[in-house]
Amino acid sequence: MKIFVHTIFSDTEKAYFRQNLPTRYELCFGSELSEENRKEAFLSSDLCLGNIPLAWAQANTSLQWLQLHSAGLDPYQQLTLPAFPITNLKGFFGQSVAETAVAGIMAMYRGIDRLARWQTTEKWVGTPMRASLHLLENAKVGILGGGAIGLKTAKILTGFDCDIKIFSRTAKGDSILNINTLGQFLPDLDILVACLPETQETIGLINKSLLELLKPSALFVNVGRGSAVDEEALIDILQENKIFGAVLDVTATEPLPPHHVLWQMPNVLLTQHTSGGWAEENLNKINFFLENLQRFEKGEPLLNMANLERGY
Amino acid sequence: MKIFVHTIFSDTEKAYFRQNLPTRYELCFGSELSEENRKEAFLSSDLCLGNIPLAWAQANTSLQWLQLHSAGLDPYQQLTLPAFPITNLKGFFGQSVAETAVAGIMAMYRGIDRLARWQTTEKWVGTPMRASLHLLENAKVGILGGGAIGLKTAKILTGFDCDIKIFSRTAKGDSILNINTLGQFLPDLDILVACLPETQETIGLINKSLLELLKPSALFVNVGRGSAVDEEALIDILQENKIFGAVLDVTATEPLPPHHVLWQMPNVLLTQHTSGGWAEENLNKINFFLENLQRFEKGEPLLNMANLERGY
Repeated sequence: MKIFVHTIFSDTEKAYFRQNLPTRYELCFGSELSEENRKEAFLSSDLCLGNIPLAWAQANTSLQWLQLHSAGLDPYQQLTLPAFPITNLKGFFGQSVAETAVAGIMAMYRGIDRLARWQTTEKWVGTPMRASLHLLENAKVGILGGGAIGLKTAKILTGFDCDIKIFSRTAKGDSILNINTLGQFLPDLDILVACLPETQETIGLINKSLLELLKPSALFVNVGRGSAVDEEALIDILQENKIFGAVLDVTATEPLPPHHVLWQMPNVLLTQHTSGGWAEENLNKINFFLENLQRFEKGEPLLNMANLERGY
Repeated sequence: MKIFVHTIFSDTEKAYFRQNLPTRYELCFGSELSEENRKEAFLSSDLCLGNIPLAWAQANTSLQWLQLHSAGLDPYQQLTLPAFPITNLKGFFGQSVAETAVAGIMAMYRGIDRLARWQTTEKWVGTPMRASLHLLENAKVGILGGGAIGLKTAKILTGFDCDIKIFSRTAKGDSILNINTLGQFLPDLDILVACLPETQETIGLINKSLLELLKPSALFVNVGRGSAVDEEALIDILQENKIFGAVLDVTATEPLPPHHVLWQMPNVLLTQHTSGGWAEENLNKINFFLENLQRFEKGEPLLNMANLERGY
């Protein structure tokens, strides 16, 4: 049985993959093939790990299972009735993304971004800076999205005794509120963390009128999808200092184009869509695939079956 | 009764102080006086808030109480039998310093310092950076010092499910170990956070041989006193990449001199002794003084009596 791997792995990771895969499988790493041979290799494969181009997915009639290496399903929602099951990495990035969200908040509150830049220019500011710093302790935090990222972020923030409200359309549980009630809570929030997947309902959800409800000391964080926020409206309120600042792991266009206004905004911290990453990320992806492969073999339900209609 | 204020306050803070002080007291802000009049004003005062020069403290025979605006007692340990009680702000900075400690750790683990610098030069790195990031979750953290900073740091880190060991000479409690056993735990630590006061026992405590026990992936954090660590030995192991990096709020010399080797070390984050600061820091100091003043008036024991011999 042939497994096509579209995810880019290092040599160490490939070796780990080979060592831990039963010998009855043939591994084919797309990155080792020429451009023209790559698609052919995929089309003749039985299983696939990685986010192959949409057209490939549409053309493959013999694929038995596609394991994505992302939590997001974009662009595969466009597949009309795929003949093969698609699984994703929903939940896999929760802790990592939550840690970057909190790292970004703490950087803005404790001036780490400014300190890092001053270090480069050997500029000692010290004491006069202290009055511009803030404490995360007891902050009122609204979290948009009740998935793995939102719940992990909430867990971390308990260590700071934050007052946390999670807003979700579907998730249920203590302290989870309906996202439709967001507007009434926004004026009171110190921090709004968006960790929404991209779905029909979330695109543009954080619109101008919601953003304008934030108070001047509010910090906005987006570690979900850039499409969830009206970016032009966000830039406007940031430029007019109507809120304290923003930590953006995601933007409408990535990579952020040269000379984009966000690059040089002092109240913005850009984390360049790195929040899902950590040193063992790829090894853990391989482990997840291997675990799901065992299920596939035994005909058991696969972990993380993607719901293309819902979008996650 | 005359209160001399040596701490530098803003006009807003001074106004707040005046409004909240009983009218029977006379407030004298040293910063509003000329250099020569300042010492005279202090010498004729009954009470003092702020860290006046050691020589002034030695010369004042009529002072009834000195409230320092710091947790540290340096240089007042040199006072021989002061005739007045000295109180400090022990514990006051705990949360703030702990937040900078964790902000620094998270910055190093999630690459925030690098991202902030790349933002200035509009450099998008993105995906290739991910493999260089780390998770704080489940990290093994040793905390040196069982005071307010250490305990607050430990509390915050529970949100990350860290495995925490606090090392102290005097503090007692669950998960607090004797500092003499530090050596046997060091090789296993992912992070070592020093938050020690400056005392006879702590000067140079983190010496070369202890630092060399840290593993290559270890992160060293100092938010206590610069004197606690052998800085030359630390710089050596950092330059040789024998540890992952360091977050230093304190250094042997502050401000750090121009061209000091620490400025340009990529595995070092300098937070410029700002960890104790937050926007409401001075207002809270005034509130602390006012609370202690009520005790002083009633002849009740003052909060935070300094123990000059012990050093904190």
